[in-house]
Amino acid sequence: MRSESFSPRSIAIIGASPDQGKISGRLMKLLIERGFGGVIYPINPKYGEIGGLRCYPDLQSVEGPVDMVVLVTPAVAAPEALKQAGQKGVGTAVIVSAGFAESGEDGKELERQLVALAREYGIRLLGPNTIGFVNGFDRIAVTFTTYADDDIPPGPIAIVSQSGAFGSGMAAMARRRGLGMGYFVATGNEADLNFADVLGAVLDDKRIAIVAGYVEGLREGQSLLDIAVKALDLGKPVVLTKVGRSQAGATAAASHTGALAVQDVVFDGIARQYGLVRARNEEHLLDVLQALLFCSNLKGSRIGVVTGSGGAGVLIADRAADLGLGLPALSDATRDRLKALVPGFASVANPVDVSAQIFRDQDSLREVMLAVLDDPSVDVGMVWTQLSERQSDMMVEAFRQVKERASKPFVVCWVAAPDRAITALHSHGIAAFRGGEPAVDAIAAVVFYVEARRRRERGAMPLLVASELPSRSGVLGTVQAAKLLTEAGISVAKALFCATADEAVEAARQIGFPVALKIESPDILHKTEAGGIRLGLGDEAGLRAAHADMLAEVSRRAPHAKVSGVIVQEMAAPGVELVVGIQNDPTFGPVVMVGAGGILVEVLRDMVFRKAPVSEAEAGRMLDELRTSALLDGVRGKPPVDRKAVAALIAGVSRFGAANGARLRELDLNPVMATPCGVVVVDWLMVLD
Amino acid sequence: MRSESFSPRSIAIIGASPDQGKISGRLMKLLIERGFGGVIYPINPKYGEIGGLRCYPDLQSVEGPVDMVVLVTPAVAAPEALKQAGQKGVGTAVIVSAGFAESGEDGKELERQLVALAREYGIRLLGPNTIGFVNGFDRIAVTFTTYADDDIPPGPIAIVSQSGAFGSGMAAMARRRGLGMGYFVATGNEADLNFADVLGAVLDDKRIAIVAGYVEGLREGQSLLDIAVKALDLGKPVVLTKVGRSQAGATAAASHTGALAVQDVVFDGIARQYGLVRARNEEHLLDVLQALLFCSNLKGSRIGVVTGSGGAGVLIADRAADLGLGLPALSDATRDRLKALVPGFASVANPVDVSAQIFRDQDSLREVMLAVLDDPSVDVGMVWTQLSERQSDMMVEAFRQVKERASKPFVVCWVAAPDRAITALHSHGIAAFRGGEPAVDAIAAVVFYVEARRRRERGAMPLLVASELPSRSGVLGTVQAAKLLTEAGISVAKALFCATADEAVEAARQIGFPVALKIESPDILHKTEAGGIRLGLGDEAGLRAAHADMLAEVSRRAPHAKVSGVIVQEMAAPGVELVVGIQNDPTFGPVVMVGAGGILVEVLRDMVFRKAPVSEAEAGRMLDELRTSALLDGVRGKPPVDRKAVAALIAGVSRFGAANGARLRELDLNPVMATPCGVVVVDWLMVLD
Repeated sequence: MRSESFSPRSIAIIGASPDQGKISGRLMKLLIERGFGGVIYPINPKYGEIGGLRCYPDLQSVEGPVDMVVLVTPAVAAPEALKQAGQKGVGTAVIVSAGFAESGEDGKELERQLVALAREYGIRLLGPNTIGFVNGFDRIAVTFTTYADDDIPPGPIAIVSQSGAFGSGMAAMARRRGLGMGYFVATGNEADLNFADVLGAVLDDKRIAIVAGYVEGLREGQSLLDIAVKALDLGKPVVLTKVGRSQAGATAAASHTGALAVQDVVFDGIARQYGLVRARNEEHLLDVLQALLFCSNLKGSRIGVVTGSGGAGVLIADRAADLGLGLPALSDATRDRLKALVPGFASVANPVDVSAQIFRDQDSLREVMLAVLDDPSVDVGMVWTQLSERQSDMMVEAFRQVKERASKPFVVCWVAAPDRAITALHSHGIAAFRGGEPAVDAIAAVVFYVEARRRRERGAMPLLVASELPSRSGVLGTVQAAKLLTEAGISVAKALFCATADEAVEAARQIGFPVALKIESPDILHKTEAGGIRLGLGDEAGLRAAHADMLAEVSRRAPHAKVSGVIVQEMAAPGVELVVGIQNDPTFGPVVMVGAGGILVEVLRDMVFRKAPVSEAEAGRMLDELRTSALLDGVRGKPPVDRKAVAALIAGVSRFGAANGARLRELDLNPVMATPCGVVVVDWLMVLD
Repeated sequence: MRSESFSPRSIAIIGASPDQGKISGRLMKLLIERGFGGVIYPINPKYGEIGGLRCYPDLQSVEGPVDMVVLVTPAVAAPEALKQAGQKGVGTAVIVSAGFAESGEDGKELERQLVALAREYGIRLLGPNTIGFVNGFDRIAVTFTTYADDDIPPGPIAIVSQSGAFGSGMAAMARRRGLGMGYFVATGNEADLNFADVLGAVLDDKRIAIVAGYVEGLREGQSLLDIAVKALDLGKPVVLTKVGRSQAGATAAASHTGALAVQDVVFDGIARQYGLVRARNEEHLLDVLQALLFCSNLKGSRIGVVTGSGGAGVLIADRAADLGLGLPALSDATRDRLKALVPGFASVANPVDVSAQIFRDQDSLREVMLAVLDDPSVDVGMVWTQLSERQSDMMVEAFRQVKERASKPFVVCWVAAPDRAITALHSHGIAAFRGGEPAVDAIAAVVFYVEARRRRERGAMPLLVASELPSRSGVLGTVQAAKLLTEAGISVAKALFCATADEAVEAARQIGFPVALKIESPDILHKTEAGGIRLGLGDEAGLRAAHADMLAEVSRRAPHAKVSGVIVQEMAAPGVELVVGIQNDPTFGPVVMVGAGGILVEVLRDMVFRKAPVSEAEAGRMLDELRTSALLDGVRGKPPVDRKAVAALIAGVSRFGAANGARLRELDLNPVMATPCGVVVVDWLMVLD
């Protein structure tokens, strides 16, 4: 779809009503009040006129063309109304009516009818069960939300939301902060147009600089990712609040939406990969929007802080440390420049603690900030102040002058600021926050976005070559899986299948003692639990004893498992244990995972995901994001592991996953031993569909 | 000190000035403007009259009594002024002047003189380098902060701050939210009155219900803890924002305050122990204050959510899960009651997703909320809405009626609320928040506080018996340390000192093979690094070989270490590795620590601290707070470890640490093996001062 769909010149409201207590009446009232410049056709056989406009008995009676219909009829009447719209040649239908897929089987059937009619007549549907949309540029409010009770000032922000109330809350907050909004679209049940479709449409509008989204679930992930790439190329940030992080949240989401909840850790990794900025909640989202709008010229992550409170400076330093941002030392030249400007007892370190006096003098305030911004090690300025009702106009003017003269971005943290100061700062293109922590959080999001744009890899990925997978489904044999992996460039520990103890001894001689012995059975996915692993077997006698002992234990612990033999395998050097794997995500398709191995993966759930395939550089970032990443650097004096080798393995696995797509139900390399000299895949499991 | 010190009837301003651009002039102007009802004596030989008041050449010339002097003189003139105040019999001096300990050696000397004079004359000092204080009850503003430019409405909140600007920012935010403030005190350099003194004083005022504090550093921790206990007993919450969590923050703090930065992880543990509520930043602090003020009747942690947005409900559920709060299932009776109230498509699960309609009807809104609050499994209600400028009075009235009728607390999350709605809600004693996440965060703080009050242990701790520590300082021998620990009821693995290999063999026979061998040297604190550990020695031959090999390796790796012999020790069963220890904290004295052992302690810094001693119940909570606490529950089908035994060990160690106080520089039990059958201390190090 295109953004022009939200700029109809003529709108028919099917099910219009003069009763403003009803959604239908309210919607028409708001459409008129907010200043729609086109033609409105109320449709309802019961009335001859509504609100001074001629009311038509049906759509056929309308003489002129109709660009958009808005359905506010009962659900059961919607298919017939949509059919009439189709016959009339309408392009877009906004179905505000509820009572569809969100309310049981009958509703689902009605929704299927709507979709079929839309396909038949080539109409695009927004909704059903949507609170509608607002186009601020053209003053079109097709909605009944209380947001539209007041002015809908246009601006460079678009909001796309899977929740109407939540989205209009965000819109209201933006207006409160003096930030204009071009589009607000609530996608409702997404019977036809989905989140990604609308996101793509509003991104196409040249007047839109940034899009905020609210996501509960995605039926299909690839279209969102295509749009994420497009948005990166356009330089238009997409900021998303996605709920359903917790089990409780996912349950709550499932109870009011038909869409599939996305496993949060998967979504999070893919968002990082594709430069989608995540925001925790409404306020954080607005903060991030502001920062991205007004600090798009950010070049790095080092903050120079000017503060009227030493304490606030410390709080800012703490938060910056949490988020990996730096407060660089200022140069001697900067410090000398500052010393001439601030009282003797003030600190000219970073944070520059200037005390309250500076905020009473426009020139001093401006010059202090310019001095900090001029410092070569500073990428972004941050100034903290509070209250100052009496001096606020002067301070705003000082900040305006800084904005005019400085080539680097800066933000203002103003606790308990007068409302007019915040609005004035925004009108000057200066981001203003309620305190130091929210400002640092917002800057971190800009840093993330700027880095994501910078590394957007235009180079082609290595060609993906699908392996010749066996046609049968289920668990692949160890040796067969090893062969497939090796052919795909993923080397695993040397392993031989042996039907008997004699064969095992022969294999061990070939590989060289000491060896490991593993049970081979399509019915045993977890060998350790079944007693099916023996390690460090140093000679033939030990191997034979272990072989007998292992078979006996396995038959005791897993009496129904069909055992085809054993695997004799070279022993791996000890190292940092990792897990690398492929999962077939229902939303995003093949995703690659790396996690801390051993007991840690269970206790810490320390895992990082990406959509497959990934480059080796992206795989390296996955390793950086592990909470136990420091283990790879070597602890207790150990040398660091060969990160490049680990990254290459992850990238290789990701290509294998992407190339073999849907056939690969699961690929699990666990454990993978990372050492200073490389990486060894010690055990592997491949399951085909 | 007592809170009456902040209620002077007569104030002399030494260094008064008619120039309102100066701090001295501004301070007097604000004192008058805010409505001080007592007598003001401007003191300055240069003027005969200031602002219509007679100006005195010196304090001696004032005929009547003077309760308080405010010094705004240059720093060098302060001692003489204070001396005059002493001779006049003044009780309290507020030293606004700067240029003391915060600005070099000369300033430090001046500050020492002030303290000496204060002691000599029995005057209590606030400051120096303070922006002063505000007493809202008596309309006394002895300050030059911009906060006092406007009305100072009184109320049950006191704010005590080590940062003037930060503190007045908090005060302004409270006023913005319609929350009244009884006291605001900025403690400045704390030459005499410190943070804990002032906290104690304002807590004594019956009109104060809650205290908010801002902390950068504490010279001495015990007095704060004494006051924390008093506050718990009074049922007056103390909410603290403490900065300096990060190294960067601590550096920034050190650059503008003389006070010692407290190791944050230690402070955090002690705050949990003593029921001090921590707040991340200004806004979080205000949110928590509100919730504590208005939800003090909270009985549990289960939230019943009523939401106008399904998405907001999910966000709330997510955040509640993060913080360990529950959204319980509602009873069938509640669900039936709700079904009669909400539209058919609404969800009557928890969150109750009522859609926007409910917020247009006062009775429905009230009844839905009462139904949820009446549910036996709900402890606190939370309602989410947004905007609604037109209906806000009606909604406020509905909430007021709920407050009147419900016996349980509830909070309102109102995104982009009209200001007057927030103020009205607060005037009805209802906490209102800007969104769902801040509300959940605030409720979590109330739950923390209620639980801390509930478990405030009035029972006496076991008597602390000091051990007979050897008089020499340094590292104690393994066996000597073991004896001291055992006598104190802390059992460690059986260990014998052996000078020779023959003695080692004899010891091993006595203990029973297999045994461990450890090097014994006062110069070797980290035995593993020195190659001084051999494990699992199963027979005499193995032991003799290991003995020779170990001595050779140690002499190679630590050639200068004096080796006195070896320790033969029983082998411990493998288990979950922990670290337990005592540190002598410069602020709080002996603190007890438990941490994840092995490599985890280094990678995750997973440690929990408490002030020693602790009860076994408190030690159990320490274990719960470990991030890797799940390891103790048993992973991969292992049975859980004996938590009681671990808690008993921690409690025992804490008593030993508390009893032996300052002599004990360090006690480090590492590793401690926790198993299903108990706990074994495998290695221990005791260092005396």
